[in-house]
Amino acid sequence: MNRKEFRDLASPDEAREAIDSLSLEGGIERVPLEEARGRVLVARLDAELDVPGFDRASLDGYALRARDTFGADEADPARLELVGEVHAGAEPDVVLEEGQAVEISTGAVMPDGADAMVPVERTDRVEPRSTKRASGATASAESGGANVLIRTSVAPGDNVMFAGADIAAGERALGPGTAITPRDIGLLSALGIDEVPVRAKPRVGIVSTGDELVRPGEELHSERGEIYDVNSYTIAAGVEDAGGEAVLYPHAGDEQDEMEEILRTAADECDLVLSSGSTSASAVDVIYRVIEEQGELLLHGVSIKPGKPMLIGRLDDSAYVGLPGYPVSAMMVFRTFVAPAIRQAAGVPEPASATVSGRLARQERYEEGRHRLMPVGLVTDGAGETLVYPVDKGSGATTSLADADGVVEVGPETDYLEAGEPVTVTLFSPEVRPPTLFGVGEGDPTVARLLDGLENPRYLSVGTRPGLRQLREGVPDVAVAAGPLEYDIESTELGRWEREWGLIVRTGNPDEIEGLEDLVDRDLRFVNRTTDSGLRSSLGSTVADLAEERGVDRHEIVDAIDGFDLGVRAHESPARKVIAGDADAGLGLRETADRLDLGFVPLGEQPVRVLANPDRTEKEGVRELERVLADVLSAQR
Amino acid sequence: MNRKEFRDLASPDEAREAIDSLSLEGGIERVPLEEARGRVLVARLDAELDVPGFDRASLDGYALRARDTFGADEADPARLELVGEVHAGAEPDVVLEEGQAVEISTGAVMPDGADAMVPVERTDRVEPRSTKRASGATASAESGGANVLIRTSVAPGDNVMFAGADIAAGERALGPGTAITPRDIGLLSALGIDEVPVRAKPRVGIVSTGDELVRPGEELHSERGEIYDVNSYTIAAGVEDAGGEAVLYPHAGDEQDEMEEILRTAADECDLVLSSGSTSASAVDVIYRVIEEQGELLLHGVSIKPGKPMLIGRLDDSAYVGLPGYPVSAMMVFRTFVAPAIRQAAGVPEPASATVSGRLARQERYEEGRHRLMPVGLVTDGAGETLVYPVDKGSGATTSLADADGVVEVGPETDYLEAGEPVTVTLFSPEVRPPTLFGVGEGDPTVARLLDGLENPRYLSVGTRPGLRQLREGVPDVAVAAGPLEYDIESTELGRWEREWGLIVRTGNPDEIEGLEDLVDRDLRFVNRTTDSGLRSSLGSTVADLAEERGVDRHEIVDAIDGFDLGVRAHESPARKVIAGDADAGLGLRETADRLDLGFVPLGEQPVRVLANPDRTEKEGVRELERVLADVLSAQR
Repeated sequence: MNRKEFRDLASPDEAREAIDSLSLEGGIERVPLEEARGRVLVARLDAELDVPGFDRASLDGYALRARDTFGADEADPARLELVGEVHAGAEPDVVLEEGQAVEISTGAVMPDGADAMVPVERTDRVEPRSTKRASGATASAESGGANVLIRTSVAPGDNVMFAGADIAAGERALGPGTAITPRDIGLLSALGIDEVPVRAKPRVGIVSTGDELVRPGEELHSERGEIYDVNSYTIAAGVEDAGGEAVLYPHAGDEQDEMEEILRTAADECDLVLSSGSTSASAVDVIYRVIEEQGELLLHGVSIKPGKPMLIGRLDDSAYVGLPGYPVSAMMVFRTFVAPAIRQAAGVPEPASATVSGRLARQERYEEGRHRLMPVGLVTDGAGETLVYPVDKGSGATTSLADADGVVEVGPETDYLEAGEPVTVTLFSPEVRPPTLFGVGEGDPTVARLLDGLENPRYLSVGTRPGLRQLREGVPDVAVAAGPLEYDIESTELGRWEREWGLIVRTGNPDEIEGLEDLVDRDLRFVNRTTDSGLRSSLGSTVADLAEERGVDRHEIVDAIDGFDLGVRAHESPARKVIAGDADAGLGLRETADRLDLGFVPLGEQPVRVLANPDRTEKEGVRELERVLADVLSAQR
Repeated sequence: MNRKEFRDLASPDEAREAIDSLSLEGGIERVPLEEARGRVLVARLDAELDVPGFDRASLDGYALRARDTFGADEADPARLELVGEVHAGAEPDVVLEEGQAVEISTGAVMPDGADAMVPVERTDRVEPRSTKRASGATASAESGGANVLIRTSVAPGDNVMFAGADIAAGERALGPGTAITPRDIGLLSALGIDEVPVRAKPRVGIVSTGDELVRPGEELHSERGEIYDVNSYTIAAGVEDAGGEAVLYPHAGDEQDEMEEILRTAADECDLVLSSGSTSASAVDVIYRVIEEQGELLLHGVSIKPGKPMLIGRLDDSAYVGLPGYPVSAMMVFRTFVAPAIRQAAGVPEPASATVSGRLARQERYEEGRHRLMPVGLVTDGAGETLVYPVDKGSGATTSLADADGVVEVGPETDYLEAGEPVTVTLFSPEVRPPTLFGVGEGDPTVARLLDGLENPRYLSVGTRPGLRQLREGVPDVAVAAGPLEYDIESTELGRWEREWGLIVRTGNPDEIEGLEDLVDRDLRFVNRTTDSGLRSSLGSTVADLAEERGVDRHEIVDAIDGFDLGVRAHESPARKVIAGDADAGLGLRETADRLDLGFVPLGEQPVRVLANPDRTEKEGVRELERVLADVLSAQR
């Protein structure tokens, strides 16, 4: 247990400087036009040809000599001899002379001799005058011998787009550093450019470390402490968001030789190597040693929370950053220090700062004097103001970030923030849409169905008691409460339903469990829910009833049930433990037993109530919930 | 010339309704986790396992029974017997009994019998007491016979993350409609999910039509009116920006059979077919006929400018939208009507409305009573206010959009907007960064180099005269003026240089042209610049000098030069015409002649001045220009 101590923590600014001192740039590559969108041009592109490449008719009509129309108007049109036609995509086969006109399509080449055109709407086609016929015999024959009356006068150049008028050969088209938009692609295609030199995306190798990590999709052995590799995929998505190219390396165990080989291969192939994934001390130690021996360690340990154990250095010709093992820490460090460096190397502009101002919903205390990055959720209160609440399930949790909308930064000098304090939230991205409805409370299958019908809800299954407490504190829009719990909270009931609860047992009930008595009197293993759950409250009443019936103290009943004291948080967990063979009976719902094909011993029914914060009943998300709730409940009946 | 007349134009709202009535949705597909970022979940995903999957040590330290630590503190530690160790990724091989502890790593499985852990920092490892040694012989031997002093007391569950604490099997993980972020990918990986059901991207077929279109990269025959296909690539990039998948179909000519076949193949393979590219009447007529005969035409012609000739309908099982042929019109119609429908079908949220408020820099008049989408550029004035100026090179120009930042919508009832009128600009995307510097004026190679050194400049090569006029009107930050032109504009000169100008002739000067006299006296074809150009002004002085020298009227000289009256806009165009064999001499710069390996006959030197709007000299972009200008000029010397 010789894990390195991080005694001299660097400041966040020092960490930024250390990363800036590394070079992550990936050089230059040429990409086809179809893949150029969003890429960053490395060199100026000048037009190599004129656009348009010829004098071009802007409308359908007649090409002619402007001076032949001088003085013409509706009442006194000019009469011209029609000597041919030119279509778009065809080379004119006629040269215009005085008194002549050529029919021309939009986009067609102006014939030699013509210097203007008149749109068809200002003309009339007519039979030639007999006198004219003789003189223009040949030409007239070609175009049916018609004349055209021009009912307006035009100047040279009218309705003609001259060659190079849009952009001419030799003109600067796009400058170096241009992030190519669809509009720029229009310009590039007009110039006939089908390949552009762009900054190569920085290649970012991700080496996930730790003997305990398993790739998603593979089999997991929880009994030996295996967990799915969260960081690699999360960080890879973050790398691509920032304009880099993520390369996932095969997962490295804690062996120094193996890890060294993978790290050096990654360093050889990439511009930046990120190691990530393991929280285990031995894996960190090995990486630490490899970087110190084979590369250069610029910095270890940053005074930031979460994210302290961060390494910055070089390995062979590559930059190296070691991310903390816990997912929340890894992602926060990535966002704060690494993503900006990748964006810079990719030439991708920093995203428009998407910030939201709000007020802290609850007071927050801090123990350590570290710069803090606090993941927070947002909820709009009844007056339309934004409340900001910390989302903290611990750095080890993966749901923390999925349940958060952004980050509040708190300086190391602050150790206390009051409820109501104005704070600025940096959203995770400008696309983040704070939830339309924020609910908390009991876990329940009907609630899950309800949520499916809403546009963008957030619901935290914290249980009935904490849910009601949070509703009282005024943070969530709604709380879902189950069971006989008494509460004196001002709230508006949006709806309620009954759910049947009892003991979930093995399929077919092979132990022939008939009720709570069996758990008390027989040697059966039971799985309870935590006291936060409304089911636990109902079970408590049933226990009290049984105690009264038997004339004994409640504790005697409780002590006789193996497993009564330890409860699990989530509503399906007892049933899952029965399936796994870890228990003979678990507290749960008939719906759960039915869905998982398990046996069920009913103990009662309990109400589930959806309670809204009375200030928020007019909020659109709450009204949407009310509508969906009515639909779901009527479908259930 | 039987092009359809669009007499009954639909309103923009009717066009939106018609598109909404079509179904563009692409169904469901399953994508691997690595490709899930940004995709939209079609179904709820529930956790199928507990995360973590076991009771997990949160720190490095010792697993133990909490009750063995009751009352322990720094001064009076509890002494426990060390009976083994558990590493991350390993299955515990020990069951803890009273008075025992197990060394445990962060992330490792809590051994049976342990209900809490103490971090290593609050412990000390010590030699066993001799009295204890006998009783615990076997266990002590296994772990070196050590004891551990626990200097704090803990409660059951302390420093342990219980199985399912993060998310438990059966809990709702992500709801339908979730646009998957990197944070959601963290949650999905934690659950071991390596493939997710997402909305298929709507497949959008792009059929470019018109005999005159050529794909970028292929050879262009300008003489027969060929142009590069701009719309297909631009619209394809726009489709992908909106979350669709663009499929480019081989380019269709104007033949009905060929076009019908391509359109129907596209309709068969795609959710939406966009036809685009041609401005030619015959191509439009053919499409019109195919859709009317083989599908259903819901709407043709929208009262919007640009964009009137738009078709909406169905072809076989696909939706169909016919975009106008001109690039600006096509892109405006796409942005306004089609992109939102694609985003909706893809489940991609509308981008955060990126709007900017500003004041119109110049008055604008409108002739027709159509809803107008006006491309505009933005520039910040000296007071930090945003000025908005229309960018209008005509719908046929491809540079218009690349030179614009967004769109101002003007209702059909408005026929006049005053200068200074407050307007709201919808940026083309939230990523649009208005230029740091806006310059106008003379085209010049040194100016192009200057621009390369700036962060995000915009420069319009409009020539010296229009540049100075615009500077006087107060729109651009700077104007570049070349030649002897007199001007009385309040301005601050940021720098100047001299450029050598004259006649650009064929390589080696085979015609032995020695000066302007040759153009006057011999039968040579000349290419002039427009009167907007500063070069033309200098040439005018030289012509006047020659006239005076010969004692003739200036017009005599001018009339004797073949090509003097017609000028081209861009500074390299005369040289290019010499290369193409269209002229024997062209007005231009020595630098251009040298770069293009052409002959050069010097006629003089002229100053080029960079003039700033005096109110903007403190603007960061102008100061950046001043710095780069100093660098470029000192490098040129």
